[in-house]
Amino acid sequence: MCTIDTSMNIYEEALRAHKKARGKLAIVSKVPLKSRHDLSIYYSPGVAAVSERLAKHPSETPLYTNTHNSVAVVSDGTSVLGLGNIGPEGALPVMEGKAILFKHYAGIDAIPIVLNTQDPDAIIETVVAIAPSFGGINLEDIAAPQCFYIEDELKKRLSIPIMHDDQHGTAVVVLAGLINATRYVKKDLSACKVVLVGAGAAGIAIAKLLTQYAQPTIVAVDSKGVITTSRSDLTPEKQMLAQLSKNDGSTSLEQAIKGSDIFIGVSRSGLLTEAMVRTMAENPIIFALANPEPEILPTVAKAAGAAVVATGRSDYPNQVNNVLAFPGLFRGALDTHSAITDAHKMAAAEALAALVTHPTADAIIPSPFDRHVADNVAAVFKKR
Amino acid sequence: MCTIDTSMNIYEEALRAHKKARGKLAIVSKVPLKSRHDLSIYYSPGVAAVSERLAKHPSETPLYTNTHNSVAVVSDGTSVLGLGNIGPEGALPVMEGKAILFKHYAGIDAIPIVLNTQDPDAIIETVVAIAPSFGGINLEDIAAPQCFYIEDELKKRLSIPIMHDDQHGTAVVVLAGLINATRYVKKDLSACKVVLVGAGAAGIAIAKLLTQYAQPTIVAVDSKGVITTSRSDLTPEKQMLAQLSKNDGSTSLEQAIKGSDIFIGVSRSGLLTEAMVRTMAENPIIFALANPEPEILPTVAKAAGAAVVATGRSDYPNQVNNVLAFPGLFRGALDTHSAITDAHKMAAAEALAALVTHPTADAIIPSPFDRHVADNVAAVFKKR
Repeated sequence: MCTIDTSMNIYEEALRAHKKARGKLAIVSKVPLKSRHDLSIYYSPGVAAVSERLAKHPSETPLYTNTHNSVAVVSDGTSVLGLGNIGPEGALPVMEGKAILFKHYAGIDAIPIVLNTQDPDAIIETVVAIAPSFGGINLEDIAAPQCFYIEDELKKRLSIPIMHDDQHGTAVVVLAGLINATRYVKKDLSACKVVLVGAGAAGIAIAKLLTQYAQPTIVAVDSKGVITTSRSDLTPEKQMLAQLSKNDGSTSLEQAIKGSDIFIGVSRSGLLTEAMVRTMAENPIIFALANPEPEILPTVAKAAGAAVVATGRSDYPNQVNNVLAFPGLFRGALDTHSAITDAHKMAAAEALAALVTHPTADAIIPSPFDRHVADNVAAVFKKR
Repeated sequence: MCTIDTSMNIYEEALRAHKKARGKLAIVSKVPLKSRHDLSIYYSPGVAAVSERLAKHPSETPLYTNTHNSVAVVSDGTSVLGLGNIGPEGALPVMEGKAILFKHYAGIDAIPIVLNTQDPDAIIETVVAIAPSFGGINLEDIAAPQCFYIEDELKKRLSIPIMHDDQHGTAVVVLAGLINATRYVKKDLSACKVVLVGAGAAGIAIAKLLTQYAQPTIVAVDSKGVITTSRSDLTPEKQMLAQLSKNDGSTSLEQAIKGSDIFIGVSRSGLLTEAMVRTMAENPIIFALANPEPEILPTVAKAAGAAVVATGRSDYPNQVNNVLAFPGLFRGALDTHSAITDAHKMAAAEALAALVTHPTADAIIPSPFDRHVADNVAAVFKKR
């Protein structure tokens, strides 16, 4: 577990604000409860007519209940922000935050569900058991590699939209950013060499989506060097990355980065040096997404020749922020009773990229305060 | 499954109103999300400070999240209203209704959770798994006998308040009504003979709470006659009732009812006849709680000499309505970090009874629109 410096103002203020609010969300009634008549319509005995109807026609449930607009935000607390495995209590304030973002950006009623199990099969059984309560499931802050298995099994067993946002939300926004960054530097993404550092949920999802979308040359790197199928020390998730990567003969990050067009880091602070950036191809694109401290500071990368730099931070330009993707993806999926497919994710990345009409070095990704974002992402479900 | 006559106005209106509302509850944010600064306080990076603190001090979770005010309303749909086992989709509109009652009467944020399993152990594992998300668990519309096992196991395994409302909410309101009904007819509840028909969740909980509170003589009856330990055909729940009952030598309802002071029915429409009421002791008290059609109509019971009649219906006086109990019980339990014990239930019944200063034949139970109800029930937790 990394340690937060709570003497920093933002953390002090966040603790105070959370203690004052005591929870970031509340339930409100959408119907009146002012008279005995109201009670008899919305509760006993009237509700029995609705219950009987839905028991006979379960597919009509979204027409009579909140499942047309509700998403469970489910976490086991194994990979929360940069804090690692901090368990359900530690995860809960993040899930409450996610829930209010769902409401704010897409009008979705999201319910935080934190689990006191970290066993993948127990997580799957729990989510399957509670699934009839919700219209969709947003998996959140679940560590690799179990996140892949959990998401895959849930997709097989449930007919409602399921998405692990740490994987796919991140991948969609990264792809959107790369579409505009390559447009800005006038390169063809398919012809680019991409160095990817980070074999967690986000890294693998980025590699998968990039490959599907444009088949660039990807070289994946970990702390021991380039990840290739010939290495005998690979975890299952690194084996996945090795399959998606190209073995170009380089063995270290220093070698791999030479002549590359794009660096994507979902790894750790300070990993990318100024010297390495200087060895990249002309007009290099740097996505330094480690949080809260990126792999290289934007000012340093720019001084070394980077044409475009994106980070995960709101205090630099080009923030890769999942909030650009997940609200619209679930809004679209709920409204069209659809799964969230790779085709939707690629179309969502293009829709996000298109919101920036003239990409520049400091503007490749739309602002989370652009009110069109969620609507434009959701619209990709209707076009299909 | 019994069938609802949807040509009745109330049912037609309820279907229309539910289809219009499409869900009876919504999530709202309690905090502002208007600027990048708000996002950085209530989401990343600020929320990390709260997450880290709660990971280290899980007991502080209710100080920083909504668990101080949240209750899951959990049902497997096995015993919904009078409809029987109608599954999770059929149960959902009832749970949404319960959730808005929680909010309306006690300010509690309640979350409907319907399950697609009816296996008691799977239900227990699911509720244990999601429990860190909530401040309490209201079990709802789960059939006997599994409801007893599920509630008992959850109480052993979780430290938050757990209550199966069909049992205990009903028992508390029945006890409140009996306290005032016996006061009105000037009888000592402890000296009364009670005939109880119905071996479901409510019947057994009523027998248990009545016995704890006043040890009246209880004779329990089912469709085959008086339930005694000498019968060989008893289900486990009827064996429980037999333990709580007194074998007075009677074998049928007709025999048992003779000379009795109190009839409590949680059984079926029309079971109690005018002739039977005429054989009861002077000033008999009738709680005919079958829904929607009581064991005997109040007008018929009164004509046969009943001094007090209570039903489950809002269109007769003396409605036994769980909404008088569960909001205040959970409010008190959440506010005092307490379990909901038998002592609390008995004190809650006395508090409810005390809200009726001058009990009369038509006023033994307070109105659900009496704004003091939840506060007075919750207050019994603070006095202890």
